[in-house]
Amino acid sequence: MSLKNIFGILGMLVTLNGLFMLTAIPFSIYYNEDYTPLLFSSLISIGLGLSTWSYMRWKNRSELSKKEGYLVVALGWVTMTIFGMLPFLLSGSITEIHDAFFETMSGYTTTGASILTDIEAVPKGILFWRSMTQWIGGMGIIVLTIALLPMLGVGGMQLFIAEAPGISPDKLKPRIADTAKRLWLIYAGLTVVETILLKLGGMNFFDALNHSLTTMATGGFSTKNASMAYYDYSPYIQYVVMLFMFFAGVNFTLTYFGLKGKFKKVWRNEEFKTYVFFIIIFAVITTIGILTYSDSSLEKAFRDALFQVLSIITTTGFVSEDYTEWTPVLSILFFFLMFLGGSAGSTAGGVKIVRHLVMIKNSFLEMKRILHPNAILPVRLNDSAVSQSVTHHVLAFIIVYLSVFVFGSIAVAFTGVDVLTTLSAVATSLGNVGPGLGTVGPVDNFAHLPGLAKWMLSFLMLIGRLELFTILILFTPYFWRKI
Amino acid sequence: MSLKNIFGILGMLVTLNGLFMLTAIPFSIYYNEDYTPLLFSSLISIGLGLSTWSYMRWKNRSELSKKEGYLVVALGWVTMTIFGMLPFLLSGSITEIHDAFFETMSGYTTTGASILTDIEAVPKGILFWRSMTQWIGGMGIIVLTIALLPMLGVGGMQLFIAEAPGISPDKLKPRIADTAKRLWLIYAGLTVVETILLKLGGMNFFDALNHSLTTMATGGFSTKNASMAYYDYSPYIQYVVMLFMFFAGVNFTLTYFGLKGKFKKVWRNEEFKTYVFFIIIFAVITTIGILTYSDSSLEKAFRDALFQVLSIITTTGFVSEDYTEWTPVLSILFFFLMFLGGSAGSTAGGVKIVRHLVMIKNSFLEMKRILHPNAILPVRLNDSAVSQSVTHHVLAFIIVYLSVFVFGSIAVAFTGVDVLTTLSAVATSLGNVGPGLGTVGPVDNFAHLPGLAKWMLSFLMLIGRLELFTILILFTPYFWRKI
Repeated sequence: MSLKNIFGILGMLVTLNGLFMLTAIPFSIYYNEDYTPLLFSSLISIGLGLSTWSYMRWKNRSELSKKEGYLVVALGWVTMTIFGMLPFLLSGSITEIHDAFFETMSGYTTTGASILTDIEAVPKGILFWRSMTQWIGGMGIIVLTIALLPMLGVGGMQLFIAEAPGISPDKLKPRIADTAKRLWLIYAGLTVVETILLKLGGMNFFDALNHSLTTMATGGFSTKNASMAYYDYSPYIQYVVMLFMFFAGVNFTLTYFGLKGKFKKVWRNEEFKTYVFFIIIFAVITTIGILTYSDSSLEKAFRDALFQVLSIITTTGFVSEDYTEWTPVLSILFFFLMFLGGSAGSTAGGVKIVRHLVMIKNSFLEMKRILHPNAILPVRLNDSAVSQSVTHHVLAFIIVYLSVFVFGSIAVAFTGVDVLTTLSAVATSLGNVGPGLGTVGPVDNFAHLPGLAKWMLSFLMLIGRLELFTILILFTPYFWRKI
Repeated sequence: MSLKNIFGILGMLVTLNGLFMLTAIPFSIYYNEDYTPLLFSSLISIGLGLSTWSYMRWKNRSELSKKEGYLVVALGWVTMTIFGMLPFLLSGSITEIHDAFFETMSGYTTTGASILTDIEAVPKGILFWRSMTQWIGGMGIIVLTIALLPMLGVGGMQLFIAEAPGISPDKLKPRIADTAKRLWLIYAGLTVVETILLKLGGMNFFDALNHSLTTMATGGFSTKNASMAYYDYSPYIQYVVMLFMFFAGVNFTLTYFGLKGKFKKVWRNEEFKTYVFFIIIFAVITTIGILTYSDSSLEKAFRDALFQVLSIITTTGFVSEDYTEWTPVLSILFFFLMFLGGSAGSTAGGVKIVRHLVMIKNSFLEMKRILHPNAILPVRLNDSAVSQSVTHHVLAFIIVYLSVFVFGSIAVAFTGVDVLTTLSAVATSLGNVGPGLGTVGPVDNFAHLPGLAKWMLSFLMLIGRLELFTILILFTPYFWRKI
């Protein structure tokens, strides 16, 4: 393993992160706030980042090895978080290290769980940086899913990326850097379009931009204490956000083809169809649930239902209504939806639809296999057979995901948090969703949890965001053994 | 499919069930109770059973086909339940059909969840029959695991049975009927020994026998409202019950070898070692937990901890202390323990230790596989490689188990039951454990749940008891398609 390679990249990441911090300064100035915390944070990042980068003289000279790849990804996210929390600490908006780390990790992992009890009291420049951490995290995930994870072979990801029309060399531009740029362009473009549409709906520019940054990242940080429930007066605004949550949960390569007019390719994709199907079916169930237990109008019930279903499935975590107040069955439904996740190749977290698809198909085939033990019955996805080893990877991924949920819950409960809060806080952190049930529900926040629980949940966000194995593998002896 | 075959066996089962009912009559007479409900139930069962049996002239003439095997198992359990609930209904001890069905299904599936609010007010004869349903269910499971499930190839069971020393023709008597008789002898023998030991501890004969019947079945029905907490004055009694819960959770073929003095065979069995390891580690954690949060003495804390850990892991469900009153972390721990289950080939329910073992080993190997994608790395169990297809079966089983848990929870929540009660009631029913959390905790019962929820939970007990696929396969088109 070459430390030069690893530290070189980390230095570059920290430098870029510092440059991004500068984008928050204009807002500080415009709103007559103290911009020095942002400036100092930026200078520290750029200074330390650039010196490490140049000292290591890293210019992508040698190819990254697989193990270096893992370390870069894991350390990259942690390093970004350490530097990213400087503006919160230096501005005094957050005073405890564990709170700042939690909030920043929640940003870069696009989770959206917050420890801020009065968001609107935080300076605008700092709030913008908070939204920006999610947008940066979303960009990171796009690179990760198109370039790194397939190379690392994590949880069957290689398959789904190959399955997504366009990543194979003959269809989209062959080089990964080019692909990344195209997808980033879509990502940035959609952010701009959402901002404009929200502005047209009467939101001010600052709020429109912030919500767009955190929608496209499926992050869910809001500039309002009431999250999107603040905009309850404008169905237009809520529907716009829904539309872009929907886009953010779709494989970005599919969106690329959609934008090029190749709708057949989009519609033939089974993950996309299932994603749409899940959204519709759960929105209908939720609407019926709301209508049964409240005297809400049909439009309002449907809007809240669709909004919360999109918000949880895409792991965004915006809140338009407190779903824990509806009925027990909807609380349980939303708890389980935290394990669903959006599409692979989107910015959404969670298990991902395609893995559920493989899992469901395999479960039905399992019964057929029992009746016909000698038949070879592979799972079929997008009209081709999935190899047994990839199906196996997928099942193992889901099981490890649930195991992390179990051990994470026991660990968090050790800090004295009650049962329902623990279970949902762990599920929502691991799935990068944001809100949970119990005392971390949609209208609560994570401020009251013990410091140790916050460190644990931050770690769970990281594990979930990096598709488990990228982090877990670092704790195995295999990884550190020299061959 | 031959209806003759199926109805013939069902007729035989109902006849035997009717004969078993007669064993409760002496207790009715001894305690000066009305024995006619038991007598009528028995006569109805024997009459209808015998006439069906003889009408179908079934004498094991043709071999059962695989599909007939599934139908016999599923219909057998349901038919037994329908006839088995007659004594409850005819005696007026239970008045609602859904309550009687729930209680009886809870008996035959050795779950132990109860809708009786005052157990001690129920006539002794009926209470004996209630305990007997569990003992009969335990016998049924022994036949099922040694004979039927391996033939049906459910969830990798074929492997674990073959792995258990002694089932292969050259080691134990070749014919399944003989094997079943040997294991039944152990089962009955241990029941007798426990009865004697409990009697020696000062329990009266009736209670000693009832608790022994339900211990060996890992059932958990008690004749006392306070369950085993009633015997808190006698550590001896509680330790005896613990010892036999331990035996009941061990593969019966291993116990057979243990009794023959072949301890090496027992100790080399990985499932057994893991079973012992889990009990010790969770008992220690629970003891520490109790000591931290209460001023209990070390002996009492250890006794309660070991008792509840054994009770939940073996899916017995006896209660010596209300574990939900301890601390949140222990509530969560016990909730997750409901998914563990005892050893395959025992009377315990749940996922089973051996499947967890395969799952855990496979999860670690998965990381090694990621680093070395071309290496073939099978799971190894008892010093031999497990085929990829069996590992695959095991993972699929666990995933289907959790899927049933998810859909079952949503269904039960639809009846208006609160979140924590729903999640734990479904987990405890599916795992055939007995008590849960929330309002179905160790000191509560299931009486207050809506009727519809009781039907659903009864069905979940059946699915869990019959290793999922035996029931689920009946709902697939593959099963009913003629080849």
